[in-house]
Amino acid sequence: MCGIFGVQGHGEASNLTYLGLYSMQHRGQESAGIASTDGEQIYRIRKPKLVSDAFSQHSFQILKGRSSIGHVRYSTTGDGGMSNVQPFSVETDIGKISIVHNGNLTNYAEIKKELIQSGAILQATTDTEVILHLIARSNKATLLERIYECFEKIQGAYSLLFLTPQELIATRDPLGIRPLCMGQLKTGQYVFSSETCAFDLIGAKYIRDVEPGEVVIVDKDNNLSSSTFSKNKKRASCIFEHIYFSRPDSKVFSSSAYIVRKNLGRQLAKEHPLKADYVISVPDSGNYAALGYSEQSGIPFEFGFIRNHYVGRTFIEPKQSIRGFGVKVKLNPVSMILEGKDLIVVDDSIVRGTTSKKIVKMLKDAGAGKVHMMISSPPFKSPCYYGIDTPNKAELLASHMSLEEIKDFIGADSVSYLSEEGMYSSLQQGQKNNFCDACFTANYPVKPSQV
Amino acid sequence: MCGIFGVQGHGEASNLTYLGLYSMQHRGQESAGIASTDGEQIYRIRKPKLVSDAFSQHSFQILKGRSSIGHVRYSTTGDGGMSNVQPFSVETDIGKISIVHNGNLTNYAEIKKELIQSGAILQATTDTEVILHLIARSNKATLLERIYECFEKIQGAYSLLFLTPQELIATRDPLGIRPLCMGQLKTGQYVFSSETCAFDLIGAKYIRDVEPGEVVIVDKDNNLSSSTFSKNKKRASCIFEHIYFSRPDSKVFSSSAYIVRKNLGRQLAKEHPLKADYVISVPDSGNYAALGYSEQSGIPFEFGFIRNHYVGRTFIEPKQSIRGFGVKVKLNPVSMILEGKDLIVVDDSIVRGTTSKKIVKMLKDAGAGKVHMMISSPPFKSPCYYGIDTPNKAELLASHMSLEEIKDFIGADSVSYLSEEGMYSSLQQGQKNNFCDACFTANYPVKPSQV
Amino acid sequence: MCGIFGVQGHGEASNLTYLGLYSMQHRGQESAGIASTDGEQIYRIRKPKLVSDAFSQHSFQILKGRSSIGHVRYSTTGDGGMSNVQPFSVETDIGKISIVHNGNLTNYAEIKKELIQSGAILQATTDTEVILHLIARSNKATLLERIYECFEKIQGAYSLLFLTPQELIATRDPLGIRPLCMGQLKTGQYVFSSETCAFDLIGAKYIRDVEPGEVVIVDKDNNLSSSTFSKNKKRASCIFEHIYFSRPDSKVFSSSAYIVRKNLGRQLAKEHPLKADYVISVPDSGNYAALGYSEQSGIPFEFGFIRNHYVGRTFIEPKQSIRGFGVKVKLNPVSMILEGKDLIVVDDSIVRGTTSKKIVKMLKDAGAGKVHMMISSPPFKSPCYYGIDTPNKAELLASHMSLEEIKDFIGADSVSYLSEEGMYSSLQQGQKNNFCDACFTANYPVKPSQV
Amino acid sequence: MCGIFGVQGHGEASNLTYLGLYSMQHRGQESAGIASTDGEQIYRIRKPKLVSDAFSQHSFQILKGRSSIGHVRYSTTGDGGMSNVQPFSVETDIGKISIVHNGNLTNYAEIKKELIQSGAILQATTDTEVILHLIARSNKATLLERIYECFEKIQGAYSLLFLTPQELIATRDPLGIRPLCMGQLKTGQYVFSSETCAFDLIGAKYIRDVEPGEVVIVDKDNNLSSSTFSKNKKRASCIFEHIYFSRPDSKVFSSSAYIVRKNLGRQLAKEHPLKADYVISVPDSGNYAALGYSEQSGIPFEFGFIRNHYVGRTFIEPKQSIRGFGVKVKLNPVSMILEGKDLIVVDDSIVRGTTSKKIVKMLKDAGAGKVHMMISSPPFKSPCYYGIDTPNKAELLASHMSLEEIKDFIGADSVSYLSEEGMYSSLQQGQKNNFCDACFTANYPVKPSQV
Repeated sequence: MCGIFGVQGHGEASNLTYLGLYSMQHRGQESAGIASTDGEQIYRIRKPKLVSDAFSQHSFQILKGRSSIGHVRYSTTGDGGMSNVQPFSVETDIGKISIVHNGNLTNYAEIKKELIQSGAILQATTDTEVILHLIARSNKATLLERIYECFEKIQGAYSLLFLTPQELIATRDPLGIRPLCMGQLKTGQYVFSSETCAFDLIGAKYIRDVEPGEVVIVDKDNNLSSSTFSKNKKRASCIFEHIYFSRPDSKVFSSSAYIVRKNLGRQLAKEHPLKADYVISVPDSGNYAALGYSEQSGIPFEFGFIRNHYVGRTFIEPKQSIRGFGVKVKLNPVSMILEGKDLIVVDDSIVRGTTSKKIVKMLKDAGAGKVHMMISSPPFKSPCYYGIDTPNKAELLASHMSLEEIKDFIGADSVSYLSEEGMYSSLQQGQKNNFCDACFTANYPVKPSQV
Repeated sequence: MCGIFGVQGHGEASNLTYLGLYSMQHRGQESAGIASTDGEQIYRIRKPKLVSDAFSQHSFQILKGRSSIGHVRYSTTGDGGMSNVQPFSVETDIGKISIVHNGNLTNYAEIKKELIQSGAILQATTDTEVILHLIARSNKATLLERIYECFEKIQGAYSLLFLTPQELIATRDPLGIRPLCMGQLKTGQYVFSSETCAFDLIGAKYIRDVEPGEVVIVDKDNNLSSSTFSKNKKRASCIFEHIYFSRPDSKVFSSSAYIVRKNLGRQLAKEHPLKADYVISVPDSGNYAALGYSEQSGIPFEFGFIRNHYVGRTFIEPKQSIRGFGVKVKLNPVSMILEGKDLIVVDDSIVRGTTSKKIVKMLKDAGAGKVHMMISSPPFKSPCYYGIDTPNKAELLASHMSLEEIKDFIGADSVSYLSEEGMYSSLQQGQKNNFCDACFTANYPVKPSQV
Repeated sequence: MCGIFGVQGHGEASNLTYLGLYSMQHRGQESAGIASTDGEQIYRIRKPKLVSDAFSQHSFQILKGRSSIGHVRYSTTGDGGMSNVQPFSVETDIGKISIVHNGNLTNYAEIKKELIQSGAILQATTDTEVILHLIARSNKATLLERIYECFEKIQGAYSLLFLTPQELIATRDPLGIRPLCMGQLKTGQYVFSSETCAFDLIGAKYIRDVEPGEVVIVDKDNNLSSSTFSKNKKRASCIFEHIYFSRPDSKVFSSSAYIVRKNLGRQLAKEHPLKADYVISVPDSGNYAALGYSEQSGIPFEFGFIRNHYVGRTFIEPKQSIRGFGVKVKLNPVSMILEGKDLIVVDDSIVRGTTSKKIVKMLKDAGAGKVHMMISSPPFKSPCYYGIDTPNKAELLASHMSLEEIKDFIGADSVSYLSEEGMYSSLQQGQKNNFCDACFTANYPVKPSQV
Repeated sequence: MCGIFGVQGHGEASNLTYLGLYSMQHRGQESAGIASTDGEQIYRIRKPKLVSDAFSQHSFQILKGRSSIGHVRYSTTGDGGMSNVQPFSVETDIGKISIVHNGNLTNYAEIKKELIQSGAILQATTDTEVILHLIARSNKATLLERIYECFEKIQGAYSLLFLTPQELIATRDPLGIRPLCMGQLKTGQYVFSSETCAFDLIGAKYIRDVEPGEVVIVDKDNNLSSSTFSKNKKRASCIFEHIYFSRPDSKVFSSSAYIVRKNLGRQLAKEHPLKADYVISVPDSGNYAALGYSEQSGIPFEFGFIRNHYVGRTFIEPKQSIRGFGVKVKLNPVSMILEGKDLIVVDDSIVRGTTSKKIVKMLKDAGAGKVHMMISSPPFKSPCYYGIDTPNKAELLASHMSLEEIKDFIGADSVSYLSEEGMYSSLQQGQKNNFCDACFTANYPVKPSQV
């Protein structure tokens, strides 16, 4: 759950990176970092803050140069996160390298163990660091050769950007688990981003995805060259990017997340054509599937919940607190329209079930009649080992409860999930073998070492 | 542009006030303050911050007692706002009084001048202070009598809450310009709030509005008594609360803002039945009228803009900035669905026109076909003197431009406004003489001294 | 316990005021404020912070104009101190006035009561506000006349600076209890300050004290005029400014605090010629008297304690804390020189006795032989009602303990105080009737209402 | 210029470390960090702040366990210093290790180059990291063996503390350049600190220095064992710790810094018996030598400068600033005693000469007669490569100016330095071959690679 961005050869490179990260803040709120190079030094600022708080005008005087990469990070562990905040930067025998990473290596523990055995020092607790070690320890002459060598060893999900004084390198794992898009500014420079919404903000045009197993090099003169380190035919792009994680205005794996989500909702209406007065969504992630459900079913869509846009990090509950306060301060049901009405409530997924439970209670308290919870994906049963922050299997509601039990647990009148087939039919490139759906099926495309 | 809240007789009075203010943060983001009383002292904390930042657990140890009032404020002037942050508190010959105020006095300058001539000291630059002076200088024996006397002198908009060690008093000006609602907790205590969304959050039930010209007193034992200081039949409730200012999940002047806004959109569709592929809104304020327009016209509603929920107070633009960056960082058009499509874009109003211009440009840049700007209220032509922060007449686009000129200025293919009649027909209590519509008509119900 | 500063007619008036306050930070650390005028408006910034934190470069763009006054404040009460932070500013029928005050009115409660009875609003809990009220309510035509009228009513200690768009006015109470000095910049402008150390920092020359009962007016063209509202012959300048409060490099009541303190130490040696190996001081306030004692007695002076210059506002003690930690983190005895030695320890006063107790314990723990506590003033027995923050009489050690009991309480081998006569003989203008010595004698020059 | 502290086997280990660092804040103000262990995990908090700001009550809940080490750091470079803040922590094949370091390696660049050639990753820009690398890469079975092996390779100054879940290890380079003291709490636990002032604060007793080339291991049961990895007879303890750097209340290389400084002053008086009215010091570092000079010469000591204890990090100068403002805000000469007097001004050293110049100017402006600058060490001519932050040789005044030129540059009437012989005679263990005096003599005990 991270976002990465890079740009090569622009006079305001670090400011563009800042904008790119700004638009991808939803991919990680715990820390933000930017590295840049002027062809000699690598400059770096990293802070355990939101993008808007981490950088000031002064930052861009420090982050000199015409090339830059950046990173937003979701979860950090220990020590105020000072060790794990990306970009990482190192000095190697072939020069300075800075790196940002989106994804998770599945054989991290093994490589880490080997590295430690051979005397490497791991200061962070993140898999990105082992990639740097493998590259630094290689005997190959060029960075490209070292990247190839490294990719022989690592397994799992990795969309990576490397910044050196000479080059910007973008690469994606052979299965293409995490996204990475290539774009171009009107003035010709190449940009790379986890999501295309970053391109929209800076006025860049989406060209294509970096392909699974591809290594793209952009040199100082904006010359692009590409090679492929794996001819793997199979893909395993994260289907959850489509269902929930990406911004709806982004292209994901070359399809529109917005259109996919509306299709999921339409398909849901075909599979579960319940009767109700209104279709409402759990905002904002459920909005698009709800609209699709409404269009397909003909049941009117309403904004059933109003979102408070001023919710801070902390919130002080009264001692005699009513249950579910945490959600209530963010979302309030519009009782004036919901009272006495039967409702289809569309959400993207149920993970632990605690939020769904509060949602249903709020609606019932607001006077709603029947509450049908409608999920625009199959039951979420298995943890992700490729970079989405999910709880243990034991905490995943659908891993140990039947549909009936889930319905009872969250207090709804019914709970319906989209079928696997339905999900695939909603995708514009809907071939099952293009995606990783392990969270629904436990078919892990790369064996995680933790399992 | 403020929000006020009060509660009498509850063991967590100040925490409830905090929650009430939290839900009304949209009414003012510049400062927040709470006063409370334990029957003897009045305690007070005021900060030039958002509610979530202004108070901590420790605050509620300071804000002791079973009665409390609070305030969120939009604009403050000079001195870091230290003088103007409410509640105000004073000691008078009849005891301690704390006060919060939503609204604007139209004869503030005259009263201030008189007060200064007679030696009063005005430390703040706000009209709330003169109310306190009139009450402190009165010779009447009781606070109620003094309030009556004061209200003989002041003119304009004022919804007020007074807190004394003995009582909580809620009152509204005779024209009922600004809202003030009365509610009741499940445990019986009375609560007062600018908007009912505060009641939803704390689990209170809306009872009725405090009536224009009414003075409601709640004593320590939660006994409520009411009297009326003005039998004025005419009302002038601010119609802009319905159109834009209140949260859609609130009841405003006893009607649902959500339903009114949908009606405004439906009426707009009746008055201006244009052809288009999609109806979209400028989020979030245009959402409800857009949905109404869609339902009435049969043109599908789409979420045309995606909102970035992580926009901070500051934003660093690149030097070679493209126009309209400020809006672009907040809203991004979903080009994948808008490309080549003709659009109805629904917004609540056009004030200066600068935002509308950026909105249209973004849509055109995203590939939209025709862009029809559709406004769910009549042209905004005249400044408000009753508490809504509006620019000078000269800056109000509709005050000096024809419809054609406005269209050209914002770059749309057409611009349509709702008619006055259409606006009134959309209200549930649609009698024209119940509302102040001076911003559209320049019919000011109380003559402002500034004009 | 406050410091005030003012300057008239300088292009960097507010920056000079900032410097003046910076040098007088020892007179008050709780808040800092500056007001300035450009001949029309009065600008103001006040913060509950140290001077170095309260103002930024940007502050001086706000604090425009060529005249300015400022204030540092020690103690504030309630509400985060937002109400009491000076300067106060008001608009009166004769124009805008800003004020700063060092001192304490003894009949504050009476005047406050009268003001409240007649309808005045008191928002702060400080006596400075009543001065403003009296001036605002006066019927006199000029500010000078009003000041005279006001001074007829108020009693106690007040050194005041008034800033209006036209004038800077400096005045001192008829007894001259608190100090106020007049100086002149090299470029001719008049400056006023509680202490002359502020003049040193900005390169101004000390001219003379503002006289007790004098009103000095400096107009925009730097013309100075003076008048006297009280011909009182008696003076009552605070002797504690000499003993402890003022910076040693300041002139106080036209004498050098440094020289007075050395004299106090010399006199102490004459009165109490004990034998010891070293004379040490409790830094920094005891340094000068200790040096005087050493010179007079011939016993070598040593720096017995080393001060940690990085002590912050907070300090986290271990749970199994040893007694007296609070002092120990600030001061550490130099055991290498103190071990086995008999010591004369010079301090300026004993208030509650808790610090002295810790000081003695630290010395004994460091291996000192005999510890003779030597106080360079008479026993502190009675509270101050004129602006020095002292505890209640009951908490003043010398008010209820004999010399023997004090010695036992603090654990010293002996305790010696300077005699009253000795104290007066140490002053350069040592006439007893020039000073207020109520803290030692309970002879209050103005009857405090609290007594 | 750093301070380190460690404690083994105490229930409040991290709180004691905090106290130790608090007392050594003068050794580094840029960052502070503490690591602790509960026998399994290593916990760590590091912040680019002063000790008083870096840690809160909550910190000690995170920093669990009975063993702890800590570090204060002076200078950091780049990236907000996030990479260089100590303690460093790593996981190796023989377990977790955390480290703090005071000193500077002279062959850092060579080792770094070798490490990078062999694929090591250096994330920080500090020599401490290479020590960790050498230990991690070693094939030896135990940490002790690896430390020995590492010390074969590194050269320069290093006082180090290693923390593992099992042990606390303290060691010093064979020349004993930087200090490291061993102490014992009353309850028996061993503590280690750069200076003994830390022992005073926590109530520990100084036992002895860790010897040059010694490795002291304290296990979980507080058993101490020691071995020596170098039998080097020659020592090179940093003489500047005595002259300036250590706190005067500390024991340095088993002598009292206070007594040494007084001796330096006495010797200075013998070598340069000038006539003057007063001896004054540049506070606080010159205080002790000034007192020694005064005692030896019989010329009275006075506190010539008063220090403002509230000087913040930032200070806003007026635009028409007078020269030397930076010093003036910190120190003010007491003109009342200095006027017309001839002065001996004692300072510990002259580095760039800019401060001395300001000091002389302030004294002359305050009316002083002759100003004789008297330095309690020989001319500072050569940079330090062992951990004291000194400017380049070109910026060292004495490296390129004669005594006469220095006198003219700083504006004094005379400038006198202590002789080398005089300096050594002032030391309690004054053998020349016990100390590094390279800053005065350019006799570098270890050849620095930079030269």
